Amino acid sequence: MSLESIRYERGRLEILDQLLLPLQTRYVKVQGVEDGWKVINKMQVRGAPAIAIVGCLSLAIELLKDECSDKKIMRQEIEGKLNYLVSARPTAVNIKLAADDLINLANSLSADENVTANDFKERFIKSIENMLIKDIEDNKAIGKFGCEAILNSLEGDSHVRVLTHCNTGSLATAGYGTALGVIRSLHAAKRLEHVYCTETRPYNQGARLTAYELVHEKIPATLIVDSMVSALMHARSITAVVVGADRVAANGDTANKIGTYQIAIVARYHNVPFYVAAPLTSIDMALSTGDKIKIEERPDREMTHIGEHRIAAPGINCWNPSFDVTPAALITGIITEKGVFAPDRLYEEVPK
Amino acid sequence: MSLESIRYERGRLEILDQLLLPLQTRYVKVQGVEDGWKVINKMQVRGAPAIAIVGCLSLAIELLKDECSDKKIMRQEIEGKLNYLVSARPTAVNIKLAADDLINLANSLSADENVTANDFKERFIKSIENMLIKDIEDNKAIGKFGCEAILNSLEGDSHVRVLTHCNTGSLATAGYGTALGVIRSLHAAKRLEHVYCTETRPYNQGARLTAYELVHEKIPATLIVDSMVSALMHARSITAVVVGADRVAANGDTANKIGTYQIAIVARYHNVPFYVAAPLTSIDMALSTGDKIKIEERPDREMTHIGEHRIAAPGINCWNPSFDVTPAALITGIITEKGVFAPDRLYEEVPK
Repeated sequence: MSLESIRYERGRLEILDQLLLPLQTRYVKVQGVEDGWKVINKMQVRGAPAIAIVGCLSLAIELLKDECSDKKIMRQEIEGKLNYLVSARPTAVNIKLAADDLINLANSLSADENVTANDFKERFIKSIENMLIKDIEDNKAIGKFGCEAILNSLEGDSHVRVLTHCNTGSLATAGYGTALGVIRSLHAAKRLEHVYCTETRPYNQGARLTAYELVHEKIPATLIVDSMVSALMHARSITAVVVGADRVAANGDTANKIGTYQIAIVARYHNVPFYVAAPLTSIDMALSTGDKIKIEERPDREMTHIGEHRIAAPGINCWNPSFDVTPAALITGIITEKGVFAPDRLYEEVPK
Repeated sequence: MSLESIRYERGRLEILDQLLLPLQTRYVKVQGVEDGWKVINKMQVRGAPAIAIVGCLSLAIELLKDECSDKKIMRQEIEGKLNYLVSARPTAVNIKLAADDLINLANSLSADENVTANDFKERFIKSIENMLIKDIEDNKAIGKFGCEAILNSLEGDSHVRVLTHCNTGSLATAGYGTALGVIRSLHAAKRLEHVYCTETRPYNQGARLTAYELVHEKIPATLIVDSMVSALMHARSITAVVVGADRVAANGDTANKIGTYQIAIVARYHNVPFYVAAPLTSIDMALSTGDKIKIEERPDREMTHIGEHRIAAPGINCWNPSFDVTPAALITGIITEKGVFAPDRLYEEVPK
């Protein structure tokens, strides 16, 4: 079964400690908001959707134990605790948006005289639980649409060889994954021959996390270093590239993990279709083109060291942009939970 | 001054211990053939030209101390010692070829009745010393021709920004370097604005060795990971790419460190000239095209570990080809010690 990065049933929450991966697989119990804040702050859970969901679920855990029967006090506590949770990773925008929605919900439930304190609590917890369910449903829909698009482009019922970059799987989402969700769907449909994953320097999310997920689920997979993509495409026929997205502009330009742009260029050179898999929430229609996206630059140490071990010559300067922008012209299709869109049709066709 | 990987004057030889780079700079004394065998076998010296030169110089050191005055015995000792030196790294072809040449020389000097034992020794040592001089001269000529070719393609006297891959500098040759020799020449001509070097996964020759050389010589330089090349070419205008070669086929196809092919593709996409710098001895006219080159695959551990530290998920398969072949069509020019050749004119124009 799919790797569970978040284990939840009402009253019980555990998360897979990503700081220990890939060498140890250990779950951490989250018994309330304070634990939720800690696992987010210490980066035991990573990935914007996963952070938002774990934070809010930790509140659901705490609310269930809460004996309070005064709606006004409950509303006040909820607002305070959500703001506290957001402070654990101030730059993660998804948890901020989720907190705003939940505060609005608490306000309206509190104001509605037909809602009892018990109803309030039940409907509030249910709403958080639905975030988890919806994220996985969306990812499964992305998987289904991506699988169909790739298989429809084939003649006959041959098997596919897919390349992916970075980590877009269970570990970055509530479960299943985006680009890795497409790969899971192909595997479930018994049409996947092999996956190639790049190590994704400098932070090695591919070697550490994607490789871990693929080994865990016994999906036939091979790790390559980032500079082997074109040698691979020359040596073995690759059916498609599928990657995730940090942000998609209205014209289809896509910001994603550094190296994505390079893979798109070599895919075009070798006539390999190049897909981006992302939920509709990643498409920013207010952003006309990818040029408008500011590229974050990360510390040199991420490149010069592995843990405490220095791998680069002392004194050398580094340039360490964390992502790059792939122009829409290099993208075959953008796979969402509502279907696959041609990048130049995104603005017209995506449901607003 | 240029980094000295080999320090030689008659009777005295020291080599820079490459096992300690980039964290420590320490020279090892080579006092004869046995020391020569050890530094080659332990890989304290690396790079095919450097191995051949250090091995033969260790013989020159030993011969100078030798009191023997019988030419026949000297000839016999030379042959035995050269075969012993070749055995230190059986796959390094340059030292084998150099040994064959020197054995032929010893045979003819021994057979020539007009040559005294002292003449024999002097001419033999001189011949080894000339290997060192010729390698550096050839590299300087490569540097000069490469520098001219890059500067001639510019309008006005603007400065250049160059990208290189892997290590092709003093540490891989007798000194100065091939692609890095071109960069040194541009720097000496005060026309180099900046060098970008890739870290060159999986063995990190760029981060460890090229970055070390560039820092040592105060050449303005920045390290990037291999997947940042296209982001760099998009963000900053790059004047040219210069790389080395393991082997060039008669049609100009070039085998070089894994990742070179990918850089050539993205250079073409961004209209950046792509040069290969290599001595004529690297051009194999017997090889019609690059398809005929067998690609060596290296152990997984090179990708999964840094030293003793595991960086990839346990259980993942790896593919680890050590080089790839860049098709001639992506190469702007091949820079040799006799000038710069268009890849498709190589066979006709290179002096046989």
